[in-house]
Amino acid sequence: MPGTTRKRSVKTGLPPGSLIHIGQRHAEKTKIQLCEYDESRFQERESHSLEGVRPLPDGTAVAWIHIDGLHEIPLLEQMGSVFGLHPLILEDILNTEQRPKSEDHGEYLYIVLRLFHEDAGGGLISEQVSIVLGPNWLISIQEKKGSLFDPVRERLRNEKGRLRKAGADYLAHALLDAIVDSYFVVLDKFGEKIETLEETLIDRPSPATLRAIQALKREIIFLRKSVWPLREMLGGLGRSDSPLIREPSVLYFRDVYDHAVQVIDTIETYRDMLSGMLDIYLSSISNRMNEVMKVLTVIATVFMPLTFLAGIYGMNFKYMPELEWRWGYFALWGIMMVIAVFMLIIFRRKKWL
Amino acid sequence: MPGTTRKRSVKTGLPPGSLIHIGQRHAEKTKIQLCEYDESRFQERESHSLEGVRPLPDGTAVAWIHIDGLHEIPLLEQMGSVFGLHPLILEDILNTEQRPKSEDHGEYLYIVLRLFHEDAGGGLISEQVSIVLGPNWLISIQEKKGSLFDPVRERLRNEKGRLRKAGADYLAHALLDAIVDSYFVVLDKFGEKIETLEETLIDRPSPATLRAIQALKREIIFLRKSVWPLREMLGGLGRSDSPLIREPSVLYFRDVYDHAVQVIDTIETYRDMLSGMLDIYLSSISNRMNEVMKVLTVIATVFMPLTFLAGIYGMNFKYMPELEWRWGYFALWGIMMVIAVFMLIIFRRKKWL
Amino acid sequence: MPGTTRKRSVKTGLPPGSLIHIGQRHAEKTKIQLCEYDESRFQERESHSLEGVRPLPDGTAVAWIHIDGLHEIPLLEQMGSVFGLHPLILEDILNTEQRPKSEDHGEYLYIVLRLFHEDAGGGLISEQVSIVLGPNWLISIQEKKGSLFDPVRERLRNEKGRLRKAGADYLAHALLDAIVDSYFVVLDKFGEKIETLEETLIDRPSPATLRAIQALKREIIFLRKSVWPLREMLGGLGRSDSPLIREPSVLYFRDVYDHAVQVIDTIETYRDMLSGMLDIYLSSISNRMNEVMKVLTVIATVFMPLTFLAGIYGMNFKYMPELEWRWGYFALWGIMMVIAVFMLIIFRRKKWL
Amino acid sequence: MPGTTRKRSVKTGLPPGSLIHIGQRHAEKTKIQLCEYDESRFQERESHSLEGVRPLPDGTAVAWIHIDGLHEIPLLEQMGSVFGLHPLILEDILNTEQRPKSEDHGEYLYIVLRLFHEDAGGGLISEQVSIVLGPNWLISIQEKKGSLFDPVRERLRNEKGRLRKAGADYLAHALLDAIVDSYFVVLDKFGEKIETLEETLIDRPSPATLRAIQALKREIIFLRKSVWPLREMLGGLGRSDSPLIREPSVLYFRDVYDHAVQVIDTIETYRDMLSGMLDIYLSSISNRMNEVMKVLTVIATVFMPLTFLAGIYGMNFKYMPELEWRWGYFALWGIMMVIAVFMLIIFRRKKWL
Amino acid sequence: MPGTTRKRSVKTGLPPGSLIHIGQRHAEKTKIQLCEYDESRFQERESHSLEGVRPLPDGTAVAWIHIDGLHEIPLLEQMGSVFGLHPLILEDILNTEQRPKSEDHGEYLYIVLRLFHEDAGGGLISEQVSIVLGPNWLISIQEKKGSLFDPVRERLRNEKGRLRKAGADYLAHALLDAIVDSYFVVLDKFGEKIETLEETLIDRPSPATLRAIQALKREIIFLRKSVWPLREMLGGLGRSDSPLIREPSVLYFRDVYDHAVQVIDTIETYRDMLSGMLDIYLSSISNRMNEVMKVLTVIATVFMPLTFLAGIYGMNFKYMPELEWRWGYFALWGIMMVIAVFMLIIFRRKKWL
Repeated sequence: MPGTTRKRSVKTGLPPGSLIHIGQRHAEKTKIQLCEYDESRFQERESHSLEGVRPLPDGTAVAWIHIDGLHEIPLLEQMGSVFGLHPLILEDILNTEQRPKSEDHGEYLYIVLRLFHEDAGGGLISEQVSIVLGPNWLISIQEKKGSLFDPVRERLRNEKGRLRKAGADYLAHALLDAIVDSYFVVLDKFGEKIETLEETLIDRPSPATLRAIQALKREIIFLRKSVWPLREMLGGLGRSDSPLIREPSVLYFRDVYDHAVQVIDTIETYRDMLSGMLDIYLSSISNRMNEVMKVLTVIATVFMPLTFLAGIYGMNFKYMPELEWRWGYFALWGIMMVIAVFMLIIFRRKKWL
Repeated sequence: MPGTTRKRSVKTGLPPGSLIHIGQRHAEKTKIQLCEYDESRFQERESHSLEGVRPLPDGTAVAWIHIDGLHEIPLLEQMGSVFGLHPLILEDILNTEQRPKSEDHGEYLYIVLRLFHEDAGGGLISEQVSIVLGPNWLISIQEKKGSLFDPVRERLRNEKGRLRKAGADYLAHALLDAIVDSYFVVLDKFGEKIETLEETLIDRPSPATLRAIQALKREIIFLRKSVWPLREMLGGLGRSDSPLIREPSVLYFRDVYDHAVQVIDTIETYRDMLSGMLDIYLSSISNRMNEVMKVLTVIATVFMPLTFLAGIYGMNFKYMPELEWRWGYFALWGIMMVIAVFMLIIFRRKKWL
Repeated sequence: MPGTTRKRSVKTGLPPGSLIHIGQRHAEKTKIQLCEYDESRFQERESHSLEGVRPLPDGTAVAWIHIDGLHEIPLLEQMGSVFGLHPLILEDILNTEQRPKSEDHGEYLYIVLRLFHEDAGGGLISEQVSIVLGPNWLISIQEKKGSLFDPVRERLRNEKGRLRKAGADYLAHALLDAIVDSYFVVLDKFGEKIETLEETLIDRPSPATLRAIQALKREIIFLRKSVWPLREMLGGLGRSDSPLIREPSVLYFRDVYDHAVQVIDTIETYRDMLSGMLDIYLSSISNRMNEVMKVLTVIATVFMPLTFLAGIYGMNFKYMPELEWRWGYFALWGIMMVIAVFMLIIFRRKKWL
Repeated sequence: MPGTTRKRSVKTGLPPGSLIHIGQRHAEKTKIQLCEYDESRFQERESHSLEGVRPLPDGTAVAWIHIDGLHEIPLLEQMGSVFGLHPLILEDILNTEQRPKSEDHGEYLYIVLRLFHEDAGGGLISEQVSIVLGPNWLISIQEKKGSLFDPVRERLRNEKGRLRKAGADYLAHALLDAIVDSYFVVLDKFGEKIETLEETLIDRPSPATLRAIQALKREIIFLRKSVWPLREMLGGLGRSDSPLIREPSVLYFRDVYDHAVQVIDTIETYRDMLSGMLDIYLSSISNRMNEVMKVLTVIATVFMPLTFLAGIYGMNFKYMPELEWRWGYFALWGIMMVIAVFMLIIFRRKKWL
Repeated sequence: MPGTTRKRSVKTGLPPGSLIHIGQRHAEKTKIQLCEYDESRFQERESHSLEGVRPLPDGTAVAWIHIDGLHEIPLLEQMGSVFGLHPLILEDILNTEQRPKSEDHGEYLYIVLRLFHEDAGGGLISEQVSIVLGPNWLISIQEKKGSLFDPVRERLRNEKGRLRKAGADYLAHALLDAIVDSYFVVLDKFGEKIETLEETLIDRPSPATLRAIQALKREIIFLRKSVWPLREMLGGLGRSDSPLIREPSVLYFRDVYDHAVQVIDTIETYRDMLSGMLDIYLSSISNRMNEVMKVLTVIATVFMPLTFLAGIYGMNFKYMPELEWRWGYFALWGIMMVIAVFMLIIFRRKKWL
């Protein structure tokens, strides 16, 4: 059941700032990827500890620390103390049921949002991504190992362009952009599923179709719950007066905001389409029932009078003159034919046949 | 499927400002129409390159560059560098899934909106129109070749009036006005379709009618998704404090805004009408089922007792006095008639017949 | 089809300010009624041209020019130039699909709103009323000839009271008040129609009832579309800081605003009532179907076992001991009676009879 | 039909400030109750005229004039001139279809709201209460004779507490509090009706239940229409900067506001409950239909094959070996039993029995 | 019936500030728990009277007075006078139908909210918790005896951390956090109930399922009614400029606010899920009806023609040649088989079997 906070209640009674990882525990060891770069230089290394990691002295160089996996709490605590993060932020990073938001803590910005992808079975799963943006450093923390940020890292490696020249705020924008872009992938899959469902709905609707519609609807609700606050958050960043987001980057944040609005538009369109499909489903059930009832009525209306007539001439009255007639039997067949044809003509006129 | 961003995901992983044309590729060569005019002078020429095109020096003359077709990316890049456009704007021009918006970049205003027309099959198709408004120049970019702006060009050629005297902002207004006016054409067609559907609904509703209602509903949603932000955008331009929109033009922008509000009113009315039609459709199915059931019940109620009676006198009991009566058979016919007539009177009273 | 802008598209491609009358052309000649009054004096004359009409010099006297009919465009152009009206206002006056609004043009206020009345067949028709309020003059323009403002003129003639003493702004209020009051007349008729429909719904619902409900619903939507912006507009006038609306009149404008809010409340109540009626209609169809099915089931359940029994004793087996019994036939009748009565008791218990 | 403004249209064409009593005329003579009090003194008298009534000179004493009945217009006019009330206020007092509101006229506050009680038949009726609050006087006007304010008067008589010490604003609060409290009485009755309806819905739903649900729904809408603007108005009073509402009373006005919010919460809950009941009603009709159909199908499915078999052996073919068999008849009975039992087992498995 | 203010009307007619306990009376004696603590010291005692309790002199020590039970009004009055609480606050504490809110009284903040837990039968019950926050004291009042705040007290006893060092505002946050956390417990139970219901809905829907859905829906509405104003209130505290909430605590209040937003998200998701379940329920009833009708129609369509044929050959016409044929009987059986098989093939093709 997506979108519920089933495990949230385990934290009840604990003081705020208690570092307990809420969410599925992932077995792999936490992996840390470190990049340091400025316009002329790019250095990267991979590690399993935070040893030697500290905020860079002021300057043009930018340090990007990316962490995969949340279960090694001491590591997070260490990071918190090195970068001077507030305990509530560490708690939020670990509590993977956060609503997308950004918090301005003066010396750094804390951004949390959700990433969606499909699991093997085609179901929608989500994970939490946290970004802490400092003056010339950026920490990104992902719940599970993923390749989402690889293109950004690739661009850092190769490109001499804007990404290497601009500061940590532009890097933050690049990561947010990558995440919002990943929503389009999910939505494209959605669109395909909806198209398939629509065809099924017209060809052969069944209770399974209804359940599929409902399941998609629920996933859309689940997605929507994340994207609306995301939009709000990105809008806030685009209007932000934090010195951490410098003037030239603001435009780029607004661009991501525009993309988020497009995501929402698409989501709302899908919602409307799914609602319309429910209407079609229900009315197609009614239509089918109508068809069934028409068949029953036609059969009954044709055969009941005929059976009645047959019953009449099956009676054993002593004096029933028709029975004695030479052509009585055949005449009756004729009458029956006339009745049946007459009925069928009436039904044809009523457009029941 | 209109209104979905099916191809949007191809851009995933690319840096912002990547110039990739999203949308159907149109085969024709990009056509550029150049006009330079002031109160006394009007010059126009057509070309396939931007050679010799540059912002005019300050003065009363206005340059209007109209581009049909988006697929020649180098041409757009060239235009971007000549007029000093931000790379994100070039990206937005190419990404034809933009939500209508206007962006104030100080030296120029970027406006993007959608144009709707019907395709051959009566379906609704849309294309993106981008307008970049500078101090004394205006660039308009349309996805496909179209004749929408021809009347404006005609007015420029012939008229000695306001359009020639006023600046680029008034030209922008004229283009926006032409686009919003084109919505009324689309809506008039919509109104006709709805009227036809309504007649069908009353005369001979069928599942096809339902599908037609749903299709119209979806097109209305699609249209609506473009017009609401358009309204917002035009409202913003009418209140704009950008020096690019001069005082005397503001009133004209407000006038276009009023038209957009009228478009929205009409769209909302159509939505309500389509919802009402769905209710009528569903209840008409129920009514028909009722009719069918009544026929079945009348037939069954009349013939079941009669068939039962015929069955009685078809029994082979040794001692059944009625069978011996001289007029038994005819008496039974009489009784049956009475029963049938009695039943029919009851049904007539219940208004089932 | 009310509320649609069917003829709006004829204006596509024309420059703004093009004076084309949109709406039905009314055959009668345009009639102009002129009143000049101050506390001591009241002068009125009727004419077919604007000859001699001009803004009064400053002072206490007020000039009221009332125009019936929109089709004489030169007359309107003349008026525009005499009173210095913006061409867009003249266009709005002629384009009779305006949404109620007020525009402050500094030297004058432009107010446009809709008037509703019933046509001969009980349908709702609307016309546009434009009011231009200057410092000591007021122009009112009505689409069709009507007697709506006669009571105001009568009060001007007879009364020595506030209306003669106060300025043009109070006259504007009097006209707005007359228009909003006319909504109550329309709504009273609506109330009567709804009551009649409700009785029909309980006594003898039919598909025609449903269509009548839908027709009323559509008219309510149509009305609503005009009253909401009217409310907004009146609210704006009540808060206006235009010098044209003087302090003592503001209270009166707020009073009209209160009336408009009452109109909206009534409209919303009617909408809710009509929605409720749809629910009742649908469930009454279901109820009726239930009744029909119960009759069918009772008949079938009673007669099927009996007919089966009759069929049994109509079989021709050589050895069927019951057939030989002296009282077999009568015993069977008895058994059948018992079965029938038993069935009926069961149905009575189930409350199906 | 509650909540409609049926008689409002009689005022059409009259100038604003026309004193015409809209609403039912009540036969009793207008009764005036006068109280003058300060901390040490309490004086009260009853009268049928306003003779000798005038605003008290400044000081600590408070004058409360309570008027029952609206039909004596000269008396109201007299009051208006004694206390210097604006003619629009007198009009609003008489026009008993006012939406709850408060108006700050500088020297006095005008407050109008609605009072609800049940009539003998359990229907909801409402009347209008107007309060005019001056610096040290308060006028309250009720449409009908009622005992609503008796407890307040009683407290004035007996208590040495806050009510006698505080000014007219606190008295206004006491009256508003009494009115809002009376809503709880009405809502409690509503709650009881809803509970009764719910039991009926489960035990024996009928079209009458549906009509009762709809009637309650309409009353709730009617009530709601009064309480939402009441809330708004009380909120405004609690934030008011009028010198007529002194600092220490503000808290009490906010308290009444809180009560109004509770009233709205309860109303919204009832609305949701009534909507849920409609769903239950509709699905219970469908369920019942299902039950009926199952009975019919079981009966038909059991007896049709049996009757067919009986029909077979009632045929008169010359050569039908089974008929000659000694135990044919009994064998057939056996076969029929087996078929019937088999059918019933199938239906039992399908949970239809 | 949760969420209604059934007993609220007993207060009608009483002056504001009347201390009457609304809500169920709980038999146990009021229990008072007193804690005094600062960074180095922790003192607690339990009592049944307020003897010796008074606000501490300014300093770092914090006094927390927790009261279980509301029925001892004199005790509350005493507390009110010791801590200088406004009579309206005492009234609000006793009136246990308060909507969550916070009121800033300058010297203290009054916070009221609701606590939810399940009763023995799985039903949702709620109680009111009031918190009065002074500069260095805090009073918390709970309707019923409960262990909700035990973990906080435990942390006070043991921990040397933030809770002991920070002031009364941080204690208030800790209590609010405990309450909001308890919502997650309730919501987890809800999630389980919904999952169980969903399984039932798919396996064996019944009217009882519908009632269970409606009951859950009502509980969700009930919960929602408390959480929305709670959110608003916590948002207000997070933005509060009261000196009682010191800068370092603000962040913690915002954290609780985030949790409340998560609660609302979950509630809204559950609402959507329950609505979807209603749709599934209704369409599954329709589907079942369809199934029933299909069985009936198949049976009738197969056996009616056969019975008719059997009836034909049961007639007693003198001259019926088929009856004389040697293999007539068997031929008829053959024909009947063919008809039956043919019918079944048709139904199989229509996917009715």
